[in-house]
Amino acid sequence: MKRLLVIGIGAGDPDHLTLQAVKAIAATDVFFIVDKGEVKHDLIRLRLDMIAEHGREPYRIAETRDPERDRTTPAYTAAVEDWRSRRSQALESLIAEHLGEGETGAVLVWGDPGVYDSTLAIVEEILERGRVGFDYEVIPGISSIAALTARHRIPLTQVAHPLHLTTGRRLAESGPTADDTVVMLDAHCSFAGLSDFHIYWGAYLGTPQEILISGPVSEVTEQIRQTRAKARAENGWIMDTYLLRRSSESGG
Amino acid sequence: MKRLLVIGIGAGDPDHLTLQAVKAIAATDVFFIVDKGEVKHDLIRLRLDMIAEHGREPYRIAETRDPERDRTTPAYTAAVEDWRSRRSQALESLIAEHLGEGETGAVLVWGDPGVYDSTLAIVEEILERGRVGFDYEVIPGISSIAALTARHRIPLTQVAHPLHLTTGRRLAESGPTADDTVVMLDAHCSFAGLSDFHIYWGAYLGTPQEILISGPVSEVTEQIRQTRAKARAENGWIMDTYLLRRSSESGG
Ligand SMILES: C[S@@+](CC[C@H](N)C(=O)[O-])C[C@H]1O[C@@H](n2cnc3c(N)ncnc32)[C@H](O)[C@@H]1O
Ligand SMILES: C[S@@+](CC[C@H](N)C(=O)[O-])C[C@H]1O[C@@H](n2cnc3c(N)ncnc32)[C@H](O)[C@@H]1O
Repeated sequence: MKRLLVIGIGAGDPDHLTLQAVKAIAATDVFFIVDKGEVKHDLIRLRLDMIAEHGREPYRIAETRDPERDRTTPAYTAAVEDWRSRRSQALESLIAEHLGEGETGAVLVWGDPGVYDSTLAIVEEILERGRVGFDYEVIPGISSIAALTARHRIPLTQVAHPLHLTTGRRLAESGPTADDTVVMLDAHCSFAGLSDFHIYWGAYLGTPQEILISGPVSEVTEQIRQTRAKARAENGWIMDTYLLRRSSESGG
Repeated sequence: MKRLLVIGIGAGDPDHLTLQAVKAIAATDVFFIVDKGEVKHDLIRLRLDMIAEHGREPYRIAETRDPERDRTTPAYTAAVEDWRSRRSQALESLIAEHLGEGETGAVLVWGDPGVYDSTLAIVEEILERGRVGFDYEVIPGISSIAALTARHRIPLTQVAHPLHLTTGRRLAESGPTADDTVVMLDAHCSFAGLSDFHIYWGAYLGTPQEILISGPVSEVTEQIRQTRAKARAENGWIMDTYLLRRSSESGG
């Protein structure tokens, strides 16, 4: 039998790795890397460093280029699904070519594999096509949500309150739908104008470039906008997440 | 200066500990344990095992009894706040008595400290009273949500879909408010009757007693009810969490 491990590696700090993930990396014969190209180089390097530190020789690294996602179309879900399907073919080819009988392969997934990540859907797609067969396991990781609240030293949830997790697009369309909302994948500072809310914003969480800003949305929007634009230009990429919490004066 | 570490220890598997948490445990002089009494003995033992394995001698353990929460009153939030305030006094006394100048104390928190846990609010309350002073840091942990989805090998979020996190009480009151809802703190199987949903249920996640059940709510409700009651009677306690996902036939 062949085995694939989908390993959550945490949100940027190499010490976010769990002992379970460290053991999984040590048990891996082949690491599969679907590269996003130069721009996200820092993110690939973190994975390579983890493999170098925790991998157990002899191991192999099998790499391929990530198909570009069409970012021009307004049909976001369709574009993601098309890209996902091409990505699953790329990973399938790697597995077919490099994963031998009795071997363990691994994919290192940013943050937690459950949180806005396509790897699990891709693995299911590969298994459904049935051209390659393997058993697989998922190893949870520290998500950028957990990293965000830890660095701000705030609870994610308030007693008996729900928490909504959503994307920048959805927030722009519908606004916050709860007193506490975590927003990911927001390229447009869609929180601007939400004057009843306090924002806890974090970029490059867990990395040496980490930036934290918090305050009433009305007071810190410009600061976040400018900081974000500058950091993005300097680093060539940015990943940021935030929690919107309704200010207690306006009734929480 | 004195320092307090609030360390997320993961949801039940000792290998959920992150390298950051392992290092934090090794850097600790005094571990504070606010004991919930016999019933939750397994949960205390996991913490003691982690301290024994990763603590660096000489370290001390300072323990106190957790004040009982009033579970009879219908005013849930008020009861939680009253209990929280008594709990913060218990922890404050421990810190005042046992944390010396230049020392590092630690509280080991189940799962992720941000997720439905009162430790951070308790620490803020202690600092606001101002009788003891210290700096503090929060170390994120694997939440039971991440453990649940990893063990079921499912994504938490679907492409461009929001995810709602709520409690059993809220679910009983308002029903699911999104296609994807994670429910915690549910003592009453409040999912029963939600026939448009698929449930991914997990109890004792990450522990040797782990139980996983999934399927359409209408088909597995009785199985979960019976399994839950039996396990709870056998172990003397239970912790369970689940994800409700709207079945695709009914449009997701
Ligand atoms: C494709 S999602 C992957 C999320 C990942 N699976 C997780 O658990 O965090 C990418 C989004 O995650 C968030 N994110 C991931 N890592 C981050 C970090 N280190 N700092 C801030 N945000 C981060 C950002 O919102 C980014 O747009
Ligand atoms: C007070 S909350 C603490 C949550 C914790 N901070 C976390 O991150 O998972 C307790 C609830 O968490 C969930 N839970 C915690 N550990 C669990 C486990 N090992 N298996 C299933 N559910 C768990 C249950 O819903 C339980 O009622």
